Amino acid sequence: VSGAGEPNKGILERLNADEIVIGDGGFVFALEKRGYVKAGPWTPEAAAEHPEAVRQLHREFLRAGSNVMQTFTFYASDDKLENRGNALSFTGQQINEAACDLAREVANEGDALVAGGVSQTPSYLSCKSESEVKAIFKKQMDVFIKKNVDFLIAEYFEHVEEAEWAVQVLKDTKKPVAATMCIGPMGDMHGVTPGECAVRLVKAGADIVGVNCHFDPMTCVKTVAMMKAAVEKAGLKAHYIVQPLAYHTPDCGCQGFIDLPEFPFALEPRVLTRWDMQHYAREAFKAGIRYIGGCCGFEPYHIRAVAEELAPERGFLPKAAEKHGMWGSGLEMHTKPWVRARARREYWEKMKPASGRPLCPSMSTPDGWGVTKGHADLMQQKEATTKDQLRPLFNKADTKN
Amino acid sequence: VSGAGEPNKGILERLNADEIVIGDGGFVFALEKRGYVKAGPWTPEAAAEHPEAVRQLHREFLRAGSNVMQTFTFYASDDKLENRGNALSFTGQQINEAACDLAREVANEGDALVAGGVSQTPSYLSCKSESEVKAIFKKQMDVFIKKNVDFLIAEYFEHVEEAEWAVQVLKDTKKPVAATMCIGPMGDMHGVTPGECAVRLVKAGADIVGVNCHFDPMTCVKTVAMMKAAVEKAGLKAHYIVQPLAYHTPDCGCQGFIDLPEFPFALEPRVLTRWDMQHYAREAFKAGIRYIGGCCGFEPYHIRAVAEELAPERGFLPKAAEKHGMWGSGLEMHTKPWVRARARREYWEKMKPASGRPLCPSMSTPDGWGVTKGHADLMQQKEATTKDQLRPLFNKADTKN
Amino acid sequence: VSGAGEPNKGILERLNADEIVIGDGGFVFALEKRGYVKAGPWTPEAAAEHPEAVRQLHREFLRAGSNVMQTFTFYASDDKLENRGNALSFTGQQINEAACDLAREVANEGDALVAGGVSQTPSYLSCKSESEVKAIFKKQMDVFIKKNVDFLIAEYFEHVEEAEWAVQVLKDTKKPVAATMCIGPMGDMHGVTPGECAVRLVKAGADIVGVNCHFDPMTCVKTVAMMKAAVEKAGLKAHYIVQPLAYHTPDCGCQGFIDLPEFPFALEPRVLTRWDMQHYAREAFKAGIRYIGGCCGFEPYHIRAVAEELAPERGFLPKAAEKHGMWGSGLEMHTKPWVRARARREYWEKMKPASGRPLCPSMSTPDGWGVTKGHADLMQQKEATTKDQLRPLFNKADTKN
Amino acid sequence: VSGAGEPNKGILERLNADEIVIGDGGFVFALEKRGYVKAGPWTPEAAAEHPEAVRQLHREFLRAGSNVMQTFTFYASDDKLENRGNALSFTGQQINEAACDLAREVANEGDALVAGGVSQTPSYLSCKSESEVKAIFKKQMDVFIKKNVDFLIAEYFEHVEEAEWAVQVLKDTKKPVAATMCIGPMGDMHGVTPGECAVRLVKAGADIVGVNCHFDPMTCVKTVAMMKAAVEKAGLKAHYIVQPLAYHTPDCGCQGFIDLPEFPFALEPRVLTRWDMQHYAREAFKAGIRYIGGCCGFEPYHIRAVAEELAPERGFLPKAAEKHGMWGSGLEMHTKPWVRARARREYWEKMKPASGRPLCPSMSTPDGWGVTKGHADLMQQKEATTKDQLRPLFNKADTKN
Repeated sequence: VSGAGEPNKGILERLNADEIVIGDGGFVFALEKRGYVKAGPWTPEAAAEHPEAVRQLHREFLRAGSNVMQTFTFYASDDKLENRGNALSFTGQQINEAACDLAREVANEGDALVAGGVSQTPSYLSCKSESEVKAIFKKQMDVFIKKNVDFLIAEYFEHVEEAEWAVQVLKDTKKPVAATMCIGPMGDMHGVTPGECAVRLVKAGADIVGVNCHFDPMTCVKTVAMMKAAVEKAGLKAHYIVQPLAYHTPDCGCQGFIDLPEFPFALEPRVLTRWDMQHYAREAFKAGIRYIGGCCGFEPYHIRAVAEELAPERGFLPKAAEKHGMWGSGLEMHTKPWVRARARREYWEKMKPASGRPLCPSMSTPDGWGVTKGHADLMQQKEATTKDQLRPLFNKADTKN
Repeated sequence: VSGAGEPNKGILERLNADEIVIGDGGFVFALEKRGYVKAGPWTPEAAAEHPEAVRQLHREFLRAGSNVMQTFTFYASDDKLENRGNALSFTGQQINEAACDLAREVANEGDALVAGGVSQTPSYLSCKSESEVKAIFKKQMDVFIKKNVDFLIAEYFEHVEEAEWAVQVLKDTKKPVAATMCIGPMGDMHGVTPGECAVRLVKAGADIVGVNCHFDPMTCVKTVAMMKAAVEKAGLKAHYIVQPLAYHTPDCGCQGFIDLPEFPFALEPRVLTRWDMQHYAREAFKAGIRYIGGCCGFEPYHIRAVAEELAPERGFLPKAAEKHGMWGSGLEMHTKPWVRARARREYWEKMKPASGRPLCPSMSTPDGWGVTKGHADLMQQKEATTKDQLRPLFNKADTKN
Repeated sequence: VSGAGEPNKGILERLNADEIVIGDGGFVFALEKRGYVKAGPWTPEAAAEHPEAVRQLHREFLRAGSNVMQTFTFYASDDKLENRGNALSFTGQQINEAACDLAREVANEGDALVAGGVSQTPSYLSCKSESEVKAIFKKQMDVFIKKNVDFLIAEYFEHVEEAEWAVQVLKDTKKPVAATMCIGPMGDMHGVTPGECAVRLVKAGADIVGVNCHFDPMTCVKTVAMMKAAVEKAGLKAHYIVQPLAYHTPDCGCQGFIDLPEFPFALEPRVLTRWDMQHYAREAFKAGIRYIGGCCGFEPYHIRAVAEELAPERGFLPKAAEKHGMWGSGLEMHTKPWVRARARREYWEKMKPASGRPLCPSMSTPDGWGVTKGHADLMQQKEATTKDQLRPLFNKADTKN
Repeated sequence: VSGAGEPNKGILERLNADEIVIGDGGFVFALEKRGYVKAGPWTPEAAAEHPEAVRQLHREFLRAGSNVMQTFTFYASDDKLENRGNALSFTGQQINEAACDLAREVANEGDALVAGGVSQTPSYLSCKSESEVKAIFKKQMDVFIKKNVDFLIAEYFEHVEEAEWAVQVLKDTKKPVAATMCIGPMGDMHGVTPGECAVRLVKAGADIVGVNCHFDPMTCVKTVAMMKAAVEKAGLKAHYIVQPLAYHTPDCGCQGFIDLPEFPFALEPRVLTRWDMQHYAREAFKAGIRYIGGCCGFEPYHIRAVAEELAPERGFLPKAAEKHGMWGSGLEMHTKPWVRARARREYWEKMKPASGRPLCPSMSTPDGWGVTKGHADLMQQKEATTKDQLRPLFNKADTKN
């Protein structure tokens, strides 16, 4: 068991050598459950406020096999931080810099790269101009350049136009650029297909394209496969990345898990098992994807399952595998013989886990009253929502079905 | 928001004053997902091996509202550590002492007590004598006395006889003693009812009695209510404790979740939501239980939900509530109006979450081919199980249903 | 294949010879689906109004293997017929007589006996006296004696006291008497256990005791087994009968399927398959029950499955088996090979059928706001219920959960 | 309440006048449950063998509101009857003629038309020539002309080419022709879209086009809507018909319910409620479909629900409505108040019925190892399948998943 490789080997050198790169999991959901992120705003002030908690999570993903430490900078632009109504003792710059330092500190404990991330902006959703939106991305680049991250990720875009703008700004830094949209097989919010999105992002300068968040692993693999087919058909060249949810979402519409009635506080029954994750890793690999990670819902053991599944191809296991018997072999000495009988691959591969919830359905009907850009109801506001604003929404929701 | 109270107020002083004491969650399951505990052996060497990970988990429970830091000493007796086949660089004493130090360090960061814990022994299951079993408990007491824990917990007993022996040994230390069995309404493995178990434990010297592990919260509350009724009927006096699983287990038999086919690697769909936890906390309180905590499956946000539900009675919220809007209020400013419509209590209270698994059932048929004490198949062995020993088990399991 | 036996062999001669007697299915539910019975009143005027429909259903059960044609006289007392608000062109006597004639006509087409049935009365539920209730049963006996039915069944009693009264009246005719209560393992509505109910009914004169309706087959078999154990323990002798629902009811309380929210218009997903029925027949036989039939939800193919399962013991198949391949063998020549692969016992025995309803739960929470006898809300009235009477019920139901 | 209309008004006169025509349900499934049809062969010898059973089912559909009595002639061609291995006392001609007589007899009891039906042939699936396949259809026409049916239906075609051939033969009789394929939104077995299928059938001479069997009602309505859009886009004119399953089939692939593991002996949990049927009838009407009926799984009460839902548009209720309270109103006088609270539309419209099967999933994975035409494994044979032929199929099925 070893962390493998030369620490200075860059993301593109790895992918060009057909190495598998394992990503990390989503920080906001994991840290929300640990008590350091507030659901709703989902802002990353913990990087400055509680660095020990963020450092520990980085470390767990590193042990689990991650080759990339993404800076915990989701929604870390000043205006986003401001309009979330969370009185803060830290500036956006302090948070961004602290996040870079934590990622680098832990990356240096193993064979990991640091990736600086930007994502969809409130400004775009509020119909601001290309130059205004680009200015936001540019500001975030200042920190990433100063802290010298290894590469950049533009992630979580619902609209391909904004993703293109982001890629163009990131590309100016001369760092390698990955771009992931939070879309499924039905394409972006205006119906642009995954294939066309991918072609446009590659043309805009992305080295690595794919999807993250919003859908379950197998749906995301399918979507990236559509992207790959289109990029190849267009005679272009790229690497592919997938960073899905750790939640089963067979019932999602085009806008993904946000619209499920369980989002974000009752998603527990949907969490993938480690065996689901091994299946995902294998299918992603077979689809030709080489950057394989996770997003919301992923815990360190999910990433470890990815690393374990791909250990034959990679030639080594992750550190945390020392605390895990492959395919349940840790049960071989269990007191009860019927539990020992579970210490084998066929048992867990065929497992169809019960929900323990006989009063609950297996699928939901997604909410959704419009599209996210431009619709009046969907405009952003800085002020706290009032009861008078909320009441009609409650009524609408109650009479909906 | 404050941690409240005088740090030096002992467990019995709090309970005698009718204060609510909030426990923590189970460490082996939480740290297994983080990569520091091996499922199967479930041993706590991480206390010495990766103290930063154990410290961080203590700290998260403290922030979530726990008033008790249980030493991470589950299965920490020398013989258990040895026969689990995990080559270790640490002695049992080193692990036990490290666990005490970590618990005390974090307890001192807030208003928490340190509890030293012992649990069911392989020796009892292998039919060893009373004096042999008691010797094991006594040895563990040496560390707890040296490190001066605040009180003691004898937990996870399937057989009331062994629990009584444990209580007798612990009582000799003069520290307050809590005793919890891992049983449900059907009683212990020999059919002794919960009520009779409780009466015997109180008579043996326990100050606090109840159940932990093996069953879901509402089943555990029901079981402790049966205990309380019997203790009162017997004219005895005690405090009551409940530390259940965070998994729904409507399909369990008398031996609990171990026998569910999903144990321990596919329990995800059964995890309780934070709203389920608020319901649990309320019902436990209404049943007259004042020491309310958790066991396997509990994450810090589950304990926070317990503390939030009981905030009106306690007069304060836990620290981590600063990162949580009660009843979903953090969603009030969400971009999508249909998500804002979820920012209210009625929405989450009525939520019946989908599993996202339309090919899975909602209940399982528990395994179980006998009782755990004395049966030949259930004898403990130190050596690794061989393939020849496992094969007949696999066959038996496959033809079972 | 033959109908077997001498037509004149009575019910007790058959049971005393340890022959298996197969009952029929419930007529009100089957004829409701065919358009001849109104759900709610559930009255049997079709016997006189549409004799061809009733005759055809008798004939289908006969073909399926039934040895008993129960007269279609459920709720056929004059006062019940009157107070149901269904303006009728037939008197109660006309209906009762027509029902007897139809049963006898079809019984004579094979080896079947005619059984005249009485059931729980509105009078008892309205707290009328023993003599008043008995007078109702006596009146029904007049027709059964005149038409010379072969034996009598007192069925569908929730209260053992009323069942005893019925048995006493029926016993006076000198005909053999069967008595079935619509109870589960929790006993009658006042908590009298199944065992005590059975002992009291045997002492009152019943030759055959058991349960019918309200619960699923396996629950009913379990209940009759409790009855049998108690009768034997009391040193008494009796034969045993079971006539359960054809609906799965794992979620019922003590009052059975009436209280399920799906009753009576959305029970479809609960219908047992023919394979479920074979399992039921086998378990009923193993429990020592020899009169094995059905109630609400049973269609002719369900009774055929009972007769097919017990063909080895009986030595012959029912007539309708000429249109049925045992264990799916009729599929052996199906066009599609994967359907041919279903032509075998192991396939259907292991089948766990999907519901095709991913938005529905697998269990319900029963309604129920009190007990059926004496409670003010539960008093009977002859007049149509007014909107003003219904409105508070609607409100109560809506806010209940 | 009246049967309405002039009995001599033909199918096209009704549809041209924008009247709603209500079809009947599938006879083979309904009569299989009653004991008169053998699953597997599914042949209609009962028309001659047990005319009283067939007549009674016709009569129940008539009472329920059907305006069309389809002759019970499914799979009634001589070669099909022969190769099913069912030793028969009747010739194909006798069966066909008996079926026509029964349909006419009952049609004359109300306002119904008689429709003669043909369906997909084994000959086409075995790759026989156009003239051979057409000869089969022509032979069936001889009986229909002799018996002077009112119009013709070519139904249950998986391949549009064979359906065109059938329409051409039927059109030669000068009778009105309806044509329905057993396809879903994915089109026929060679991927021809529903729209193109419909256009080709209309061009071949069909007056009425649509789908029957294989999929659930809402899927079928969606498919016919696709047909209608394509026919209108092509500038053609037609009427539309839908005759779906009464089973929920969200998990079907392109070949429909045959491939579901539950087919045909464990479909019970999927049966639609009467409320599901009212929803279906409304949606079919809103989609512009005017010939609305059913296929396998439909019982008379399902057709009654269609007729009741469309009573406002039609101006009258079906006869069998005299035994049914709309939206549960028959419960208004029920003994238990919580059952009376169900006597209203909102209650049943919102009902999500439990399956009562907590060990079963809500969806299945369809079988399917190839396409039905031409594949070697799928060739028809006249001889009974041997054990040696079946064994490899069983093995293949067992190792499949």
